Amino acid sequence: MSKELVFGHQKPDTDTIAAAMAYSYYQNQLGYETEAVALGEPNDETKFALDHFKLAAPRVIETAANEVDKVMLVDHNEPQQSVADLDKVQVTHVIDHHRINGFNTAAPLYMNVRPYGCVSTILFEMFEEKHIDLPADLAGMMLSAIISDTLLLKSPTTTDHDKEAVYALAKLAGVDYEQYGLDMLKAGTNLAAKSDNDIVDGDAKTFEMGDLTLRIGQVNTVDLNDVFARQADLEKAMESLMSENGYDTFVLIVTNILNSDSDLLIVGKEADKVAQAFGKELGANKRINLPGVVSRKKQVVPPLTEALG
Amino acid sequence: MSKELVFGHQKPDTDTIAAAMAYSYYQNQLGYETEAVALGEPNDETKFALDHFKLAAPRVIETAANEVDKVMLVDHNEPQQSVADLDKVQVTHVIDHHRINGFNTAAPLYMNVRPYGCVSTILFEMFEEKHIDLPADLAGMMLSAIISDTLLLKSPTTTDHDKEAVYALAKLAGVDYEQYGLDMLKAGTNLAAKSDNDIVDGDAKTFEMGDLTLRIGQVNTVDLNDVFARQADLEKAMESLMSENGYDTFVLIVTNILNSDSDLLIVGKEADKVAQAFGKELGANKRINLPGVVSRKKQVVPPLTEALG
Repeated sequence: MSKELVFGHQKPDTDTIAAAMAYSYYQNQLGYETEAVALGEPNDETKFALDHFKLAAPRVIETAANEVDKVMLVDHNEPQQSVADLDKVQVTHVIDHHRINGFNTAAPLYMNVRPYGCVSTILFEMFEEKHIDLPADLAGMMLSAIISDTLLLKSPTTTDHDKEAVYALAKLAGVDYEQYGLDMLKAGTNLAAKSDNDIVDGDAKTFEMGDLTLRIGQVNTVDLNDVFARQADLEKAMESLMSENGYDTFVLIVTNILNSDSDLLIVGKEADKVAQAFGKELGANKRINLPGVVSRKKQVVPPLTEALG
Repeated sequence: MSKELVFGHQKPDTDTIAAAMAYSYYQNQLGYETEAVALGEPNDETKFALDHFKLAAPRVIETAANEVDKVMLVDHNEPQQSVADLDKVQVTHVIDHHRINGFNTAAPLYMNVRPYGCVSTILFEMFEEKHIDLPADLAGMMLSAIISDTLLLKSPTTTDHDKEAVYALAKLAGVDYEQYGLDMLKAGTNLAAKSDNDIVDGDAKTFEMGDLTLRIGQVNTVDLNDVFARQADLEKAMESLMSENGYDTFVLIVTNILNSDSDLLIVGKEADKVAQAFGKELGANKRINLPGVVSRKKQVVPPLTEALG
């Protein structure tokens, strides 16, 4: 059996890195020869987790076919989120928690997809099902991934599976998950080091709603003032991205991870209508406050789709 | 939780029926409310298995959205092999052993895909993983499915997983799998009752290779003469189907399930080249004999793709 590479999506987050490491370990225990790699450098939050558990970041690759014939995907299945030359290799395994979109294969394969908050939760259950022991450091990385994807189990994407995995992994890793999780999330919100473009667009996605092309970004913080002290500059960055890319409207979700509230900064066409989708009036500061809102997918996109259609 | 329907592909075979029944039972044990249904009546082989284990055939449906909002797919994922109104329901679960082709979802879901010889083997492992007991009759249907898909473990599609499942399921069902399996396979080869079109096209698939459109059918028998006594009529049926549907070449694989050999009946364009793809010269009877060949997917299509591709 020849070596296979295991990797997650582009712009890697903590789950994509942790899942590649954990799944590679799992497969190697079963007799495969695999290596966890990444499609980019770890972000500040992931670096904090790797440092805490004394693990090295996976090697970064640009292409796969120059090294291997076969690969395993974690935390994504859409080809445009994957390695550039995915069409030149065979995908033999997929572990994911996203919808299936544009993923086709020439041959049968292994796929384990579950609608959980985090891929590391699926992997935790797979280790249990096969009775494979998890080393403490790897358990710590998987714990970090679930905390990251579910914002410390507070996001509405959180399932009971994610909660049970967090409790068990925290024991294995030997950490207090609430204290450790807050420290890790804080480490990922070092906004002073980030450019205006990074803050508004680093995690942004595009949505077509009615006649509008909306760009919706999200950034986590422990103090909303850290973001809004720069509001004038952030608005400039949003305006530039809109005219460069043809977005009609730009929404930046600024989420306070300490109390699980968000402020939305809304610029461009129909900004009032965006605010009204949440039952709010847009203030002179172009912001609305949404207590309890932390999930773009579950709490921001659905009311907008409903209102703008 | 509202009721969901569980079903396999159109033109149901023993695996598609058994897998729907077994997965519905599995999900009901986990607290879902599901019903196994089918997209057509069971064939002779499946009827033999249902009768043997005293089980009723699943209800046949034409459409799903008139009954339910959500469905679970087994033994297929390609929309064109599924219920006609698949786009009007949400697929929440998929258990399959085929390649992924054209299957997209709007939301995350459960998918368990493994490259085994049979879906019932995947389900057998899932029952084990969740420690759910299998009733003897259901174990018998799943055993029948694996025997059918792997031709009594002789097809090259057979994996070690399929073998282990057969040994365990035969014990649970209380049958001698070799004797029972041969009886079941024989029951599926009652060719006297089948029309010429059924024999040549009942299980046929279309392949594009180079400039040629090939139609490749397959039929199982316990005596090649049962088929070739009708050769002149079968050739007429093949010629009609070719001119009606624009196939250039028609290959009928006639497989003797007792000794795991096949004769290929080849008509149309490049028939000599088709024979030569297997290192054979086409005789005056338009047939070639291929000892040990039983799998269209693994043993017939690859040499043809290589020679005509």
